[in-house]
Amino acid sequence: MTYGMIATWRMAYEGVAKMARELAKGGDAGQSIVEAIKMVEDYPYYKSVGFGGLPNEDCQLELDAAYMDGDNFDVGAVAGIQQTKNPIAVAERLSHERFNSFLVGSGATKYAREQGFEQQEMITDRAKRMWELRLEEIQKNNLSPYDGHDTVGMVSLDRRGKMVVGTSSSGLFMKKSGRVGDSPLSGSGFYVDSEIGGATATGLGEDLMKGCLSYETVALMGQGLSPQKAVDQVVYRFNDKLIKRKGKAGAFSLVCLNNRGQWGIATNVEFSFVAATETEKAEIYLARPGKNQTTEIEVATAEWLKAYDLRIKQPLEKLTR
Amino acid sequence: MTYGMIATWRMAYEGVAKMARELAKGGDAGQSIVEAIKMVEDYPYYKSVGFGGLPNEDCQLELDAAYMDGDNFDVGAVAGIQQTKNPIAVAERLSHERFNSFLVGSGATKYAREQGFEQQEMITDRAKRMWELRLEEIQKNNLSPYDGHDTVGMVSLDRRGKMVVGTSSSGLFMKKSGRVGDSPLSGSGFYVDSEIGGATATGLGEDLMKGCLSYETVALMGQGLSPQKAVDQVVYRFNDKLIKRKGKAGAFSLVCLNNRGQWGIATNVEFSFVAATETEKAEIYLARPGKNQTTEIEVATAEWLKAYDLRIKQPLEKLTR
Repeated sequence: MTYGMIATWRMAYEGVAKMARELAKGGDAGQSIVEAIKMVEDYPYYKSVGFGGLPNEDCQLELDAAYMDGDNFDVGAVAGIQQTKNPIAVAERLSHERFNSFLVGSGATKYAREQGFEQQEMITDRAKRMWELRLEEIQKNNLSPYDGHDTVGMVSLDRRGKMVVGTSSSGLFMKKSGRVGDSPLSGSGFYVDSEIGGATATGLGEDLMKGCLSYETVALMGQGLSPQKAVDQVVYRFNDKLIKRKGKAGAFSLVCLNNRGQWGIATNVEFSFVAATETEKAEIYLARPGKNQTTEIEVATAEWLKAYDLRIKQPLEKLTR
Repeated sequence: MTYGMIATWRMAYEGVAKMARELAKGGDAGQSIVEAIKMVEDYPYYKSVGFGGLPNEDCQLELDAAYMDGDNFDVGAVAGIQQTKNPIAVAERLSHERFNSFLVGSGATKYAREQGFEQQEMITDRAKRMWELRLEEIQKNNLSPYDGHDTVGMVSLDRRGKMVVGTSSSGLFMKKSGRVGDSPLSGSGFYVDSEIGGATATGLGEDLMKGCLSYETVALMGQGLSPQKAVDQVVYRFNDKLIKRKGKAGAFSLVCLNNRGQWGIATNVEFSFVAATETEKAEIYLARPGKNQTTEIEVATAEWLKAYDLRIKQPLEKLTR
């Protein structure tokens, strides 16, 4: 059987490229998710996931993560966990618990510590500087404080047909203490059924949970739609529905993969993502909403990649925000 | 237009009966949910919701609640909130926030306090005694500590066609600190769309979030199924799927109501619920799984009601568990 991986945002590239090679050799879907997401969590320049993530309004870093096994529907999740190096690893461990598999706040941190997961200070000097700059900016310009919510979400299919999905996020920059987005919520941030496929989301969690968009994407693939048709239908219809019923829709993007290794992606903003399958090497793509409820997809150019790299690695002393 | 309310468990009766009378006179669906759930939260003998709810493993009472507006999909939720008299009222307030509408742990408690929601000690002597007895029983008989997870969930339809759903729960008795079940999770514990209908769940949250059963019930009603057909299909199919894929399924029960005031209910265990519509007065029913993926429903007898009342009001000094 075939294999594949798809993930949100350019930051997923290194992990997906590495773990797709493992999947090609018969590696496990669950392990590919945990290892690839750990790489994103550990990289200090990715400011919306794990180490180096952006803090909440109290300058505390509260992290969310989830893991779901598409064979047996086991779900493990944490929200508002602190001082823990790899939230995705804690979520994976929790997925094996029959009870108490979703833990939040100090209970989640306590569990991780007691279970021996590596503890560390997760706020970097860079993240703290960005927090200070943002605070000044908000106060000076009377801005809404909330900004940025780039969750890494990944779906994986291994050669045995097992599918797994995982997410990890520091959530909304400047969020209120205890705020939870869609990332740890089954059906909203992620969903997977190995007999169909999986999906995961990034964007404004408060709006994603209004539509359970990951669950709906898997449901439509289950009705026989191709991944691209399923996710186009889910994202653009819900975007329109929200504008009609509420007057506005936040940014959201979904990626999905079916159990034959075919993928799809739809978004209501410009969005980067990564995919790798048996027939397509790991690649960074850019996507944006196209005409008639479709999605335009292109491979990211060398210029785009270079500009991205310069942006995330701006010297600390030159940061303007 | 017509009106209606449906809710999980016998404990919902007083609130539903009262608020159905308000709905008959043109009352608001949102207000009916908040007021009816407050009545359950405030009643000290209901040991799984609000004041008098059963504590976690550390003998702390951590409460979950959610509110969703079916007109605009606004969701507000709290999990692990402490010392707060009415979690449902906090969830309703949060549903009006564009950002930070789901708060957990100390962040949720802080928000409620700052916003002026009534704070009080929520653990009663009775709940503490039950906790002590249960601890002894677990230690003596080497039992799994987890037991009881009776969420009150309600769906309401008002004469203007607005539909709202709400939930409130103290979660699993003896849960780990920070454990979150399905009650505050959109799609799993609840979902509503005023153009279709709403659904809400009770049971083992860890299993309910594996299937997003409330969302799926609303989706099937949206495809034209009657509420009873929709919920029968969702509950019994997912129960079988979980047994096939995981080897077992926890207890779960769902109630639903469509925007014409028709209701449905399905359950894999014996389960009591309450419904009231324009043509049916508020009534307490008992349900159990029937033949061929259907549900048997009967009005609760006077004997059943009397035994229930005696059970929940057992004198404190005579409590055996």
